[in-house]
Amino acid sequence: MNKETLINFIQDVWNEGKIDTIGNYIADSYTIYHDPGDPWHTKTLNVKEFQQRVSTSRAPFPDQLFDIQTIFEAQSRVCITWLWQGTQQQEIAGILAKGKTFQMSGATVYSFDNKRICGHWQVADRLSIYQQLQQYRLDN
Amino acid sequence: MNKETLINFIQDVWNEGKIDTIGNYIADSYTIYHDPGDPWHTKTLNVKEFQQRVSTSRAPFPDQLFDIQTIFEAQSRVCITWLWQGTQQQEIAGILAKGKTFQMSGATVYSFDNKRICGHWQVADRLSIYQQLQQYRLDN
Repeated sequence: MNKETLINFIQDVWNEGKIDTIGNYIADSYTIYHDPGDPWHTKTLNVKEFQQRVSTSRAPFPDQLFDIQTIFEAQSRVCITWLWQGTQQQEIAGILAKGKTFQMSGATVYSFDNKRICGHWQVADRLSIYQQLQQYRLDN
Repeated sequence: MNKETLINFIQDVWNEGKIDTIGNYIADSYTIYHDPGDPWHTKTLNVKEFQQRVSTSRAPFPDQLFDIQTIFEAQSRVCITWLWQGTQQQEIAGILAKGKTFQMSGATVYSFDNKRICGHWQVADRLSIYQQLQQYRLDN
């Protein structure tokens, strides 16, 4: 079931950072159809490029955790809504709030091709991160 | 089918502003479980309060349009991902960009009880609106 594949993908790759497992989950070609603010928005990646994306994305928040709230499956797509949190260890937008935990929420629709994930459409409440960074700057 | 009910609800209520139809769609009690930045986040509303919410929300962008991208149904829940656009006619956060069209994307999970919508969990990319307002301020 694609649903179970996705749950394992989120845990292994995005939560635990096991980039060696990525080839088990994604197709040879993975397209970020929609992900505003993400540096890879609209790009198509191969497995190696996807591994680099995960490493780069996880670096500021190495303990990040996506907590799946609801999961839906229809035809070749699986949709999840999620809460996210991570403790900052690297600078973002010129601000380093080292040791501070940030929260965000979002939703992602994953497309599958022959049991492999071949792309996603995502939206996240990026303004909440922006506001948490601004609040930190005001407090320090 | 709850899916068809939801499509009609989005069109009648949120796109066209027909607040008299709200009683046909929602339960006597409607809870906004999660909707960061929304003034009604975590509140429970009756039909009249929901009508006021729609009128207030639509006022700055009376031509607003939610364009559903994907729709999922599972048990008593329906999830949609959407693109939104609207032309500003009233001030937001101290900025009036009258006649300017704004874009945003988001996803919403609706809960149903006996064929009526009884609540939602929503996330929207609010930062995109914030950035469009800031860009307008810089340009004017």
